[in-house]
Amino acid sequence: MNSTRTGHTEQDTTTRDTGSPVFALHRGGKLAVAATVPLRDAADLSLAYTPGVAEVCTAIAEQPELVDEYTWKSKVVAVVTDGTAVLGLGDIGPRASLPVMEGKAILFKQFGGVDAVPIALDCTDVDEIVETVVRLAPSFGGINLEDISAPRCFEIEDRLKERLDIPVFHDDQHGTAVVTLAALRNACALTGRSLGELRAVISGAGAAGVAIARILVEAGIGDVAVTDRKGVVHAEREDLNPVKRMLAGYTNKAGLSGSLETAMAGADVFIGVSGGTVPEAAVATMAPGAFVFAMANPNPEIHPDIARKYAAVVATGRSDFPNQINNVLAFPGIFAGALQVRASAITEGMKLAAAEALAAVVAGELSADRVIPSPFDPRVGPAVTAAVAAAARAEGVARA
Amino acid sequence: MNSTRTGHTEQDTTTRDTGSPVFALHRGGKLAVAATVPLRDAADLSLAYTPGVAEVCTAIAEQPELVDEYTWKSKVVAVVTDGTAVLGLGDIGPRASLPVMEGKAILFKQFGGVDAVPIALDCTDVDEIVETVVRLAPSFGGINLEDISAPRCFEIEDRLKERLDIPVFHDDQHGTAVVTLAALRNACALTGRSLGELRAVISGAGAAGVAIARILVEAGIGDVAVTDRKGVVHAEREDLNPVKRMLAGYTNKAGLSGSLETAMAGADVFIGVSGGTVPEAAVATMAPGAFVFAMANPNPEIHPDIARKYAAVVATGRSDFPNQINNVLAFPGIFAGALQVRASAITEGMKLAAAEALAAVVAGELSADRVIPSPFDPRVGPAVTAAVAAAARAEGVARA
Repeated sequence: MNSTRTGHTEQDTTTRDTGSPVFALHRGGKLAVAATVPLRDAADLSLAYTPGVAEVCTAIAEQPELVDEYTWKSKVVAVVTDGTAVLGLGDIGPRASLPVMEGKAILFKQFGGVDAVPIALDCTDVDEIVETVVRLAPSFGGINLEDISAPRCFEIEDRLKERLDIPVFHDDQHGTAVVTLAALRNACALTGRSLGELRAVISGAGAAGVAIARILVEAGIGDVAVTDRKGVVHAEREDLNPVKRMLAGYTNKAGLSGSLETAMAGADVFIGVSGGTVPEAAVATMAPGAFVFAMANPNPEIHPDIARKYAAVVATGRSDFPNQINNVLAFPGIFAGALQVRASAITEGMKLAAAEALAAVVAGELSADRVIPSPFDPRVGPAVTAAVAAAARAEGVARA
Repeated sequence: MNSTRTGHTEQDTTTRDTGSPVFALHRGGKLAVAATVPLRDAADLSLAYTPGVAEVCTAIAEQPELVDEYTWKSKVVAVVTDGTAVLGLGDIGPRASLPVMEGKAILFKQFGGVDAVPIALDCTDVDEIVETVVRLAPSFGGINLEDISAPRCFEIEDRLKERLDIPVFHDDQHGTAVVTLAALRNACALTGRSLGELRAVISGAGAAGVAIARILVEAGIGDVAVTDRKGVVHAEREDLNPVKRMLAGYTNKAGLSGSLETAMAGADVFIGVSGGTVPEAAVATMAPGAFVFAMANPNPEIHPDIARKYAAVVATGRSDFPNQINNVLAFPGIFAGALQVRASAITEGMKLAAAEALAAVVAGELSADRVIPSPFDPRVGPAVTAAVAAAARAEGVARA
């Protein structure tokens, strides 16, 4: 070091503290591929590679379903993104999205025992993404779509589900929806209410908002209204994209219109997935014993300490407050269960089963600060996996 | 078991012995993904995933080359195939090719320390393959093309090299070519000859034959003629595809035409990559002290015991005879070296350097049965890696 100043010379060489624990941990990436068979000598090589491997290839060529048994295909998930909606950072492109995709892959492994490979695509056109994923699908047992911006994510998922006979799952939608429903079920159980008597308001009509609305309706919520930047989504609005138009068809039975604040007055549940903020005054107008799930990251729509003044149960997306609505509670077990029975799809029934199983993990230990398990609760993965596998069988999509 | 017969009831249930060591080894596949960072608690999670990961994403978005430092991109290779030319099995499709691609991935890891992921594509159209690989390239540090049929493989490789700034390498071509050149160099050293005084004949104008011809010319071979099913490839033939037409331009200075046997008369080197056979009588007509590399698998073009009656050095593609020309001697170290310096391409100079380094490993211990190292020789990987990295620097394609 030639610097005449002491104590912080390294920091001076860059505007970014790449010596920080985060950068130190990320150096070289977070993933590796490992062999699960030995390669000690020529005998091993002749089994794992030529000439022995030809027997296995021939068997699969003659009996295609054997690919699930004799390769890692049925154990490995592609984590596919185009980098257009990464965390709260937006459209940062495929390369800059890779640290998140690698993170996702290690969560898959740690919490579901699922192998996962990041596939960050250098295209954003819906047709191109769909064709690309269809072409690489033979190598994978499932496709986890990640951080693709709305409304493209809806069409991409729908078209891939139509084209492929392996599970396709957009985690930003369905992972969030499953965990939210689980928390809501337990909030009901804690306060002696039923989903059917609740009116909910969702702030945000992106990937998460749309999927949460849908799963709440499927689960039998009394009513749910979704708001975007222009207020409540309802059928009379002429500025709706096709997804929001569909949403208008099965939400908002009360026929609300106008602002988020208007919708919140008297509502039993607030679910924030917008990244915006909600004034304390609006929370104060909610029904007594309300549930407030302020899930924006890193800044909840309303601080949980404020929300707790009015609400019976408060949840956020953060680990440093009680009741963290964290997708990692859902996606590893959902894919593990689906792969275990070689499901051809992840159905609505499998998602509902995942939410029920997740809620059940802490059913015997409920409190206002504990309507959802911790991500590190070791019961979560096995419970969700088993429930999803059973639901796949019940729904007739299991192939093993 | 309800069978009244005893002793072989399990075999009866199938025509295939899936209880054999090969199938037992392949059950569940040969690969796994592993995390290289800990995920023990919320603190770990906040570094490896949200919120910490956002810092790394932002850094890469601002300074794209950081992706090589803070993700696994620069360590991981995609092993890409369309399943059209798998081993000697031909066009068995992407799924049935997966055991070979997984095998390749474990060879990459074992012999080069390179992480590799099988990507078997559900398309065979050249444009579609090129576009697909270009789109998924942001996730990978290199592309190893594998078992794609000729002549499509040539165009696919050329176009990908043009489009991408990461190494693209068709192993069936260049891996084979590098190892063949290494063996030939050592055969020359052993017998006191130089490449420049040799006339070689290559039987087979597919991926391997074309690439071997090219590297021999680059290395300064005296002359080389390539034959396909219709005999010697020469400029007057009107049935040549564009690749063979190019080949005719830089091979066969002697102006040969006619059959393989005609070309072999008086030749110093025979290189078989055709899968056909060569009569003993043809080998008998070669020049004294000839080199016969009969590399067809599983059956060499001529049995090495017969060839040895006439030739000074005999090599095959098989592990149970001396001098196995095995790609695994080349590709792991070539990619390891290229990735180590973040090379933008694998140049001809890097391949020549790999061949020289590979030959040098056994230069001090040469014999007629030892012109090339064993795949399990621990000196091979490091030697090839170092030579390729140095060549990349010398050629100006290194970026680190």
